Amino acid sequence: MELLASNVCFGGEHRRYRHRSEVLDCDMEFAVFLPPAAIAGQPKPVPALYWLSGLTCTDQNFMQKAGAQRRAAELGLAIVCPDTSPRGVNLPGEDDSYDFGSGAGFYINATREPWSRHYHMYDYVVSELPELLERELPLTGKRSISGHSMGGHGALICALKNPGRYQSVSAFAPIANPTNCPWGRKAFSGYLGDDEETWKEWDATLLIPEAKERLPLLVDQGTADDFLEQQLAPEALADACEKAHHHIDLRMHRGYDHSYFFIASFIDDHLNHHARALGLSRSA
Amino acid sequence: MELLASNVCFGGEHRRYRHRSEVLDCDMEFAVFLPPAAIAGQPKPVPALYWLSGLTCTDQNFMQKAGAQRRAAELGLAIVCPDTSPRGVNLPGEDDSYDFGSGAGFYINATREPWSRHYHMYDYVVSELPELLERELPLTGKRSISGHSMGGHGALICALKNPGRYQSVSAFAPIANPTNCPWGRKAFSGYLGDDEETWKEWDATLLIPEAKERLPLLVDQGTADDFLEQQLAPEALADACEKAHHHIDLRMHRGYDHSYFFIASFIDDHLNHHARALGLSRSA
Repeated sequence: MELLASNVCFGGEHRRYRHRSEVLDCDMEFAVFLPPAAIAGQPKPVPALYWLSGLTCTDQNFMQKAGAQRRAAELGLAIVCPDTSPRGVNLPGEDDSYDFGSGAGFYINATREPWSRHYHMYDYVVSELPELLERELPLTGKRSISGHSMGGHGALICALKNPGRYQSVSAFAPIANPTNCPWGRKAFSGYLGDDEETWKEWDATLLIPEAKERLPLLVDQGTADDFLEQQLAPEALADACEKAHHHIDLRMHRGYDHSYFFIASFIDDHLNHHARALGLSRSA
Repeated sequence: MELLASNVCFGGEHRRYRHRSEVLDCDMEFAVFLPPAAIAGQPKPVPALYWLSGLTCTDQNFMQKAGAQRRAAELGLAIVCPDTSPRGVNLPGEDDSYDFGSGAGFYINATREPWSRHYHMYDYVVSELPELLERELPLTGKRSISGHSMGGHGALICALKNPGRYQSVSAFAPIANPTNCPWGRKAFSGYLGDDEETWKEWDATLLIPEAKERLPLLVDQGTADDFLEQQLAPEALADACEKAHHHIDLRMHRGYDHSYFFIASFIDDHLNHHARALGLSRSA
């Protein structure tokens, strides 16, 4: 892990690192916020919230725009922001569109050539990155996960597929049923091929009936989100949850859109949700 | 005023507008955050904090990165972010450097050709923009002013030169004594010419002795700011304040740098400072 930059922030530290990822077979950059408790004279390991960003993002969008560090510093919660895809791997067409390839890894493991050579963002986010960070940084190994849009869905599948691995999960405007929307169908056909049977294990709405663990889902969605109807479909997820008696708190926020202004407005609620599950006190 | 975009944010609204500026003789864009109180069913006029950004910024940096809307929404405080220079006026060399011309108007009135044709950011920020906004938006006409770096200095001179116009002033890492640092000397010689006597009315440190109003100055500065020694020189300002018995609260923050991670960490203190002066309650 090579430290690229650090900034003191709310008494903690925002850091950017580069490292060699084995599962992605390329160099990756990520960001981490360490709260004051983790960098004090007698540093104390802290739990971590993994944040998965949406299409076109890097590790920086959330760190710069969500305003999450204030509450995370108070709570004693680290935040880890991975990038959204492998980078610079020179696959043909990787930079041709905003919703496939670079910046659009969808947090799944590609099985179709040539993407399967590098695009294993699921393994990276669920296993390789936490294992690295829990070895190298003052983290307890207790984890929660959240994200936005493509990353909101990523958070849901990471939690649903890994009972016991996360204490809590939440999402902002997730692509809730990707096998059934243009963004998801484009990504899954490209990364997984045309056999739609193989897509099902990567769709949160389809994973709900079989989930081995019933972590309650906190999902925030703006009603003025331009992608709500065609791409996001939170009601499909809510319906699946209702049928399976899986608790979901789907909050529809009148007038809010898909931007970080929406995320910033409700991030403290999500941080508090994760803090409770991680056993952190809600006050400073 | 043409509305370019709006986003609901913390129950209020972030809006971007374009308008024709007479004093700058060009089209300008700016951003405003209106708190919930100002856009409710029975909207109530609210006071405004003018935020002046630093070199290379637009109206968007503060709105996206400072995390100010949360507290401003609670306080019932509008925030206005102008751009940092005239735009698209086709002066030779306007885009050649990051610290002069586009993105670097320094909130002064240029007197030297060709810059004097457009570069009147002082008149724009002090007079034209507030007059427009107080006519078109639910603003009371009570104003405070703050900013960062070039804009921190801009806030100081706007307040010092206009007794009674602002209820309070503050700054993050201001270029405190521009006649005496490379950024300031480059800008002032370009915009004002070589007669350094004419520079003095645009330097906050030199304005302190003669100030007709003694608004207390709240100034935050990081000790790990790369520009601290060569460009910012807050101790020159503090010395001038001490000699003139002008109250300054210069807070040196150990380890903080020049970035928005620093601004975000202390913006609530500044919002509270301005809210007190504007007669707003400190709690929601």
